This record gives sequence, structure tokens and C-alpha cells, in this order.
Amino acid sequence: MAEAARLGAAARGTTAPNPNVGCLIVGADGDIVGQGATAPGGRPHAESIALALAGERASGATLYTTLEPCNHRSPRGPTCTDLILASGVAAVVAAIEDPDPRTAGEGLQRLRGAGIDVRLGPGADLARDGMAGWLTRQALGRPRITLKLALSIDGKIALPSGESKWITGEDARAHVHLERAHCDMILVGRGTLAADRPKLDVRLPGLEERSPRRALLSRGEPVEGWEMLRSPADVFRLHDVNDLLVEGGSSTATAFLAEDLVDRILLYRAPIIIGEGRQSVGYIGLDAIGDAHGRWEPRDGRQLGIDRLEVYERVRSEEN
Amino acid sequence: MAEAARLGAAARGTTAPNPNVGCLIVGADGDIVGQGATAPGGRPHAESIALALAGERASGATLYTTLEPCNHRSPRGPTCTDLILASGVAAVVAAIEDPDPRTAGEGLQRLRGAGIDVRLGPGADLARDGMAGWLTRQALGRPRITLKLALSIDGKIALPSGESKWITGEDARAHVHLERAHCDMILVGRGTLAADRPKLDVRLPGLEERSPRRALLSRGEPVEGWEMLRSPADVFRLHDVNDLLVEGGSSTATAFLAEDLVDRILLYRAPIIIGEGRQSVGYIGLDAIGDAHGRWEPRDGRQLGIDRLEVYERVRSEEN
Ligand SMILES: NC(=O)c1ccc[n+]([C@@H]2O[C@H](COP(=O)([O-])OP(=O)(O)OC[C@H]3O[C@@H](n4cnc5c(N)ncnc54)[C@H](OP(=O)(O)O)[C@@H]3O)[C@@H](O)[C@H]2O)c1
Ligand SMILES: NC(=O)c1ccc[n+]([C@@H]2O[C@H](COP(=O)([O-])OP(=O)(O)OC[C@H]3O[C@@H](n4cnc5c(N)ncnc54)[C@H](OP(=O)(O)O)[C@@H]3O)[C@@H](O)[C@H]2O)c1
Ligand SMILES: [Zn+2]
Ligand SMILES: [Zn+2]
Repeated sequence: MAEAARLGAAARGTTAPNPNVGCLIVGADGDIVGQGATAPGGRPHAESIALALAGERASGATLYTTLEPCNHRSPRGPTCTDLILASGVAAVVAAIEDPDPRTAGEGLQRLRGAGIDVRLGPGADLARDGMAGWLTRQALGRPRITLKLALSIDGKIALPSGESKWITGEDARAHVHLERAHCDMILVGRGTLAADRPKLDVRLPGLEERSPRRALLSRGEPVEGWEMLRSPADVFRLHDVNDLLVEGGSSTATAFLAEDLVDRILLYRAPIIIGEGRQSVGYIGLDAIGDAHGRWEPRDGRQLGIDRLEVYERVRSEEN
Repeated sequence: MAEAARLGAAARGTTAPNPNVGCLIVGADGDIVGQGATAPGGRPHAESIALALAGERASGATLYTTLEPCNHRSPRGPTCTDLILASGVAAVVAAIEDPDPRTAGEGLQRLRGAGIDVRLGPGADLARDGMAGWLTRQALGRPRITLKLALSIDGKIALPSGESKWITGEDARAHVHLERAHCDMILVGRGTLAADRPKLDVRLPGLEERSPRRALLSRGEPVEGWEMLRSPADVFRLHDVNDLLVEGGSSTATAFLAEDLVDRILLYRAPIIIGEGRQSVGYIGLDAIGDAHGRWEPRDGRQLGIDRLEVYERVRSEEN
């Protein structure tokens, strides 16, 4: 299942509006006979690709999938549940149930009813991590929103003049490009567009094709080549975006945080002190330090050259 | 030597104006026969304490010391070189030479001349670390200066109102108290005195006695119980302080950084976002981001409860 999750996670940022599922088929003899991830644009599905690869060797095999196979008919092809039933697969292991109300357990039920050995749960955390964007959209009706910040030790994003080239080094910047490749859309505020004219493309060998759509947060005139968001709340209209990366600047970060529309923070921290400079975040409605606690959980921390990456995730439980 | 360095480091903050030396004596049979660290106030010296413990068992033993034994006569007692010569010790291992021009290699030379097996160098890095305060004072004519900052993810030290209780949790605060116990003096700016009335004492079981002297940065009236510094440059007058801890606030941190009078930063980072708030550091004379690089080196990073401690040290080489 770990390998299926890896396959699925690698497709993050390419499959919206569909989930980035990963699938692996292990033949009766223990060999891997098929594998796949949801194709760019969302079709074919991972199971369908893996089953096509396996062919007759699917018979008696075990199929691992990060998401319950779909069971709602579409004009674009047969359901994966039907494909599995027809394939002769003996066992299906699914990491998580499909939250889509059109499937929601029915796919697994039909497989069980047909005598297939069905297990639900193994690798659930890994699978949820890899499909976090799509799952957020299912749960909250908007993409998962990741805020990227590149800060000095003292928490500044630029000199007073706006100069921010370069706070972080090459390794950190390459990591940003990798993250871009796994998002469906990148957003900046008009201030950043004006100051930096960022291209927001993916400059990594082999991944250039994965440069995501670009969006601009602005109440002003549309700009050619950029999709417009008039306010952070417009993310609820992005029905075909699983993962949205917000790359700044400060007012934009503040606007998203103030509306509690950030699920994840990628903090790239350089070992420099800027002193007077632009702050990373402005007023977000906080009036007592006690209220700031319990909202963010460190999820990852690692060195990227001389810089350090920290990943925080929003804790969404109770009244936080 | 690691154990001698540990003994010496534990005495940091108590021995000024003398170095916090650690000493261990291993008898001819391999047993530890004596050990010691410089006593509070700087006397007796570590070697003298360890030799007194060893007594006759020093004969034929190996003496490990983090610093070359002193060789300059003082009215307060015999030199450690004399004591060693009289003790019958067969070998002396010193981590580093005494930079004090009154000794500077002469102690070791006299021991060698008397037929003692002398080695210089093992454990030098550990020893330098433990005596960094005193060594800084020898090299730069002022204490080693450590700046403590407690920051939110977004680099703020307080709400706009000045409220900063509590950004960090109990484990981080206990660590600050431990660091206090290892400094000779703590300094805050008058703004912090007025806002927080900090006691700056050591509230750790068994270490309450080690609360350091308190200093105030202010151009204003003296305050009872506080030693006054009229400007950061006054640190050059602190001849009896090896380690100075600067605990804030923002103007004070900025003043010390602007004059390049910070050698080490203890950064306690809480997983909270404050947004609008007081910045940690203001204008320090930086006009281009390129100039900010290469000055600070991460030396340690570790989790303290939900917070994270990062230690940076000033790189003092070439023109940085
Ligand atoms: N270190 C880093 O990680 C990093 C990353 C990016 C940028 N930067 C730096 O940040 C600086 C730019 O930051 P900034 O704060 O000036 O600009 P910004 O956030 O990029 O853009 C501000 C603009 O975004 C729009 N906007 C903001 N909040 C909005 C809301 N609630 N609803 C609708 N539109 C909204 C407005 O555009 P309209 O006025 O058009 O309505 C506003 O003028 C630059 O110096 C850049 O180099 C640093
Ligand atoms: N999170 C943390 O780590 C932390 C730590 C400490 C404090 N704080 C917060 O920081 C805030 C206080 O910061 P602040 O910047 O207002 O005050 P501050 O730095 O504590 O004190 C400012 C005062 O220090 C003196 N001073 C500053 N630079 C000087 C210089 N170059 N020469 C001589 N004197 C100098 C001046 O005193 P005179 O006017 O008397 O001359 C000045 O008014 C408080 O809200 C406090 O809670 C946070
Ligand atoms: Zn399907
Ligand atoms: Zn001595």
C-alpha cells in the first residue's frame, strides 16, 4: 500500500477535479502485475490503468488502492468496481472509503457481495496525506490551501524597499518548484505581481510540463494569462482545483489567514537577519496570545542546504 | 577530556572574571582520583581542587584540563603549574592553550621542562565551547553576548499592545532559566522593565542560587538593583562578566545587532501566528539582502515541548 500511496502522491496536482489515486496489483505468485495512478485530467482512473497492465494476470491477484474504487456510472467509461468484478481479482485492499456520496462504501459493498476478499484501512494515513487536496475539497468545498513563506530568522519577507531576492538559497527554491509541480494552481497578490513579475513555473528537469495554472488576488482589472480571484472567499468557486499554493505577498497571506483559509504552511527559513523590513503577516483578528495557541501543528522539519523547511498544518478540531 | 569539559561547562556563569575550567585526574591504575571545576568567583582553580582531592594518588597520574594550567603568580595562591610540579603527576593533557599573555604556553613549557609528558589539543572544540564566554572576553575585550528571542512562526515578539505572555511554553521557559544560570549577567531594555517587570531569576530546583546580576540598557535614571548600561558599547567595561544574556526587547535587540555585538542567538519559536504585532528586530544597517548572508550559522536545533529552540552563532571571519 505504501507503494500505491507513493504512486498516487506523485500525481498530486495533475488530476483535478478527480482524486490522485494510486493502485498496485500483486499477482497470485507475489509479482507486481500492474500499477497506475489517476491520469492527468482525472481519467483513466488508477485502477483501470493498473488492471489494463495486468490483463489476465489480474485473475486471483490482490489489488491495492488508496481510495475505494468508484461505483457511480459516468458517460466517460465503466466504473472501477465493474472493471474489478470483471477482472477476476481475488482481493481488494483500500486505504480509505470514497467520501463522494455517490460511492461512500457502496463500491466495497458490491465487491464483497461478489465474493471478493475486501479490506479497508491499511495505509489510511499515507493515503489521506497524498490526497489531502481532493479530500479537503470534498470536506470543505474548496481546495486545500498551502501558504508558502520565505522568511529571515527575524521573520521578514523583504527589505523595506520590497527587495526579497534572495532570502533563501537554491535548494529551498528547488523545493518550492517541486511543490508547485504538485499543485493545480498558484496564487499571488497584485503587489507581488507588480514587484516581482513572477513566472511561477516549474523549473525542474522533467517537470517543466507540470507548471500549474496561475491566479491573481486583486479587486482590479484582469490580467492576461492569470485567473482572477476577487477575494480569498473565491476559492469556494474553484471546483477544479484540489491543491492551491499561495505564494504571497504579505497582504495576501494576511487576507487568507484572517479568513482561516490556510490549511498548510511551508516555511522556508534562511539563516539571515534582515532587521527593518516587510513583515510576513499583518492583522489576522488576534487580540490575545492565548487564542493563537493550538491552531498549528508542526508536521515536518528539514534542512534544505543552508535553509530550513518547516511544514505546519492547521488543526481543525473543536472551536480552534 | 569530555568529562573535564562537562565539569567546566557546568560552572559557566559562576567563575568570572576567571575561566570556567574543568579538570579530571586519572590515577596510574586508571581510577578517577580527583576532579574539579573553577570555584564560584574564580578561585580555587579547577586543577587545585582536583589535586587536593587526589592527594598522594596524584603521583604518576594523568591530569586532564580544559585549559593550560596558569603560570602567572598571584597574591591569592600558588600557580597551578607549581601545584602540578609538586604533585608528582606524570602526564598533563590540556585541551587548549591559555590565551592570557601572562601564560600563553609557558605553563606547558615549564611542565615539559620538568619531564612531564604534555599533550595539547584533545577535546579542544568542546573546551572552547564551554569557555566561549571567557575566550570571547580574552579575544574581543567584552563578554560573549547571547541574544534570546521568543518568536511566533511569523516572527513577532508581542501583540501590538506589548502582550507577550506567553508565546512559548513551559519547557522553553525552563530552558531560558537554565541558560540564565550559565550567564554572569542578564540585560533588558528599559521598555521591557517597564512592560514586564521581569525578575530574571533562575526558577529551577537546585539552581536558584545561580540567579545572575541584572543590567538595564537605558540612558535614563539608575534603577535600584540594576546595573546600568548607557549604550551597548558599555559591554567593553564589563571586565568581570564572561557571559551576558540579552533578553530584549526589540529596541535592545536591534541596538546590539546594529553594533554587531551579538555572538549567539537563542531563538525559541512557538507554533503560533500572531499577525500584527511587535517585530523582533528593527533597522540594523542592512541595505541589500546579499549582505545579510554568511553571518549566522545554525549550531543547534531541538524541540522543547511544542516549541523549537534554534541556536545561531555569529561567523567571525574575513569581512563578515
Ligand atoms: N519572501 C516571500 O515569501 C515573498 C513572497 C511573495 C512576495 N514577497 C514580497 O512581498 C511584497 C508584496 O507584498 P504586498 O503585501 O505588497 O502585496 P501582495 O499581497 O502580493 O498584493 C497585495 C494586493 O493583493 C490584493 N489583495 C490583498 N488582499 C485582498 C483581499 N482581501 N481581497 C482582494 N484583493 C486583495 C490587492 O490587489 P488590488 O489592489 O489589485 O485589489 C492588494 O493590493 C513584495 O515585496 C514581494 O517581493 C515575498
Ligand atoms: N518575546 C520576547 O522574546 C521578548 C523579550 C523581551 C521583551 N519583549 C517585549 O518587547 C517589548 C519591549 O520592547 P521595546 O523595544 O519597547 O523596549 P526595550 O528594548 O526593552 O527597551 C527600550 C529602551 O532601551 C533603551 N535603549 C534601547 N536602545 C538603546 C541604546 N542604543 N542606548 C541606550 N539605551 C537604549 C532605551 O531606554 P531609555 O529610554 O530609558 O533610554 C529604550 O527606551 C515588550 O512588549 C516586551 O514584552 C519580548
Ligand atoms: Zn474509478
Ligand atoms: Zn590555575
